[in-house]
Amino acid sequence: MVAQSLFPALAPTIEWRDGDLLLLDQTRLPHEIVVEHVADAAGVWRAIHELRVRGAPAIGVAAAYGLCVAVQDACTLPLGQFRAELERQARWLDTARPTAVNLSWSLRRMLQRAQTCGASNSAQLYDALVEEAQRIHAEDQALCEGIGRHGMPLIEPGSGVLTHCNAGALATTGLGTATAPIYAAHREGIAFKVFADETRPLLQGARLTVFELQQAGVDVTLIMDSAAASIMSQGLVDVVIVGTDRVAANGDFANKIGTLGLAIAAKHYGIPFFVACPSSTLDFRTPTGSQIEIEERRTDEVTHIAGQRMAPPGIKARNPAFDVTPHELVTGFITERGIASAPFDRSLSDFFVVAGSAA
Amino acid sequence: MVAQSLFPALAPTIEWRDGDLLLLDQTRLPHEIVVEHVADAAGVWRAIHELRVRGAPAIGVAAAYGLCVAVQDACTLPLGQFRAELERQARWLDTARPTAVNLSWSLRRMLQRAQTCGASNSAQLYDALVEEAQRIHAEDQALCEGIGRHGMPLIEPGSGVLTHCNAGALATTGLGTATAPIYAAHREGIAFKVFADETRPLLQGARLTVFELQQAGVDVTLIMDSAAASIMSQGLVDVVIVGTDRVAANGDFANKIGTLGLAIAAKHYGIPFFVACPSSTLDFRTPTGSQIEIEERRTDEVTHIAGQRMAPPGIKARNPAFDVTPHELVTGFITERGIASAPFDRSLSDFFVVAGSAA
Repeated sequence: MVAQSLFPALAPTIEWRDGDLLLLDQTRLPHEIVVEHVADAAGVWRAIHELRVRGAPAIGVAAAYGLCVAVQDACTLPLGQFRAELERQARWLDTARPTAVNLSWSLRRMLQRAQTCGASNSAQLYDALVEEAQRIHAEDQALCEGIGRHGMPLIEPGSGVLTHCNAGALATTGLGTATAPIYAAHREGIAFKVFADETRPLLQGARLTVFELQQAGVDVTLIMDSAAASIMSQGLVDVVIVGTDRVAANGDFANKIGTLGLAIAAKHYGIPFFVACPSSTLDFRTPTGSQIEIEERRTDEVTHIAGQRMAPPGIKARNPAFDVTPHELVTGFITERGIASAPFDRSLSDFFVVAGSAA
Repeated sequence: MVAQSLFPALAPTIEWRDGDLLLLDQTRLPHEIVVEHVADAAGVWRAIHELRVRGAPAIGVAAAYGLCVAVQDACTLPLGQFRAELERQARWLDTARPTAVNLSWSLRRMLQRAQTCGASNSAQLYDALVEEAQRIHAEDQALCEGIGRHGMPLIEPGSGVLTHCNAGALATTGLGTATAPIYAAHREGIAFKVFADETRPLLQGARLTVFELQQAGVDVTLIMDSAAASIMSQGLVDVVIVGTDRVAANGDFANKIGTLGLAIAAKHYGIPFFVACPSSTLDFRTPTGSQIEIEERRTDEVTHIAGQRMAPPGIKARNPAFDVTPHELVTGFITERGIASAPFDRSLSDFFVVAGSAA
């Protein structure tokens, strides 16, 4: 595993070992490190549905291996029945998280491979499926490596890096996206500091980002979301690197709530603001950020914390899960092919030429 | 009580009723409304020490009445012994919260009154002390009313107001400071919306501000601190009003962590940003914000929430309790004597002429 050497005490998020699928249970982090052996289709579905594996890239890889697990028992059936079982299982796995785009994408790709691989029996087809899953897995790791390679020069020795939420190794099977430049620089022996926002309401920063950076030996400090501007004002931040859920054709992008405020503060203090952006998150069919729909989640994520009610009963709340940051606030997008600078409508499509192909 | 009519279901923060001191226990809010009858000196000390009464102005009023309670039993003693007991109790009450400037200020004022009132026996002196406490109480209410009167025109019908932390009625015995314009406008029948930041780490917004505004019938919506910029970007905020803990001579000011980020975002979106500033928070002896020392509090306020550990063990954290917002980001200070505009070094001293007298 590419990323594994960074986390000596931590299991890989996803591992395929002699026909067995092993998943690091992210719902137990950071309190317990539990690796789950996923033995059947129901186990795969549950692991994705219950967010034991999370992060779009990691879900894609888990689904590909998961489909192999789901049809293992059918290898003794005739090829026609095996194919029918494969399609049935793929349809079912696709229901585990309806909004995760990488889930459908990965399962579709596995089914296409089954169509085109020319296997003459079920065992051969199964082997081809495992190979395709391993290819998806390797591509994910290579994509993270590419972002790491291109982003690493942004991190100077002795500098401070601020990140938000978890666009980390735990969301992928490699170096993560926003964390890839951090891990790449750390691997090169560069000494620097990372500040990680806790990221209310679900605290992915406090629970996951500081955990994985700590495991890798990176110098990381947890701060509250509301402290970021103050930390910037003290000159402690030299670059901000965040992830993204969707990038519009003009470079406006959606990311976890709080990103917009960070970008505005970074601009105010003249701090470069970068977005780690694997090509899978580019959406050339969305012209600008105003066409990106923002999910409003249940307000009890705001009124309650850790299962305890904080606000009085009957209080109104807003809980936008994401915000849209306009491209004017972005210094550059770190992609697996290089850093795209303004004007982004041109630079992003120069990297990923055929409109729509990146999705 | 001036503010009481706004909160039909809620007791006043502090009430003096026929020689009895009644305090609304703020540690039980918003879950329970409990009024504590404070019967002796130890009860006063505990109520202040354990934050059952909180907010600098409210602490000042509670300490004044509390000193009366503390010497009630000594009224039968000869005048000399009564005075000795008074000074002993004042010294002891002053230890309840060493950093609360209004506590010392209020107790000093009560002792000065004891010196100058010309009482010829203990009962007369006790009566003079109660009168002085009632005067401190009335002045606090008048100060809030003044801020409300001058700030009310900032709130247009149909507009959106954003506030942070609790500079509310619960922190005073009147309309609050940042909330005073809100209550004044609401009392006039003006319809508008308030957005209240939850205010990590101690969630004074979620626990107290939305509670008191809800009790008064104000249309209030709770948001996460990290959602404020997004709410502003949607055009929902027409004015930001926050409180302050200390204002330097040039208009730089300290307030609860997160205020700086709000001010930067407000500037970015061209939203007026006002600071409710009773004269007691002006500190002409501090030339600029860089001389304001920022308290760093225990990091378990960040790593834990509601008693539960969120971040992994051994993680570093920063927990600055306040931040300093530079005067360039301030549209105006709403004081009890009017709104001070830039240049603040001149406008603030024009309102409060004798340097140092405001402290």
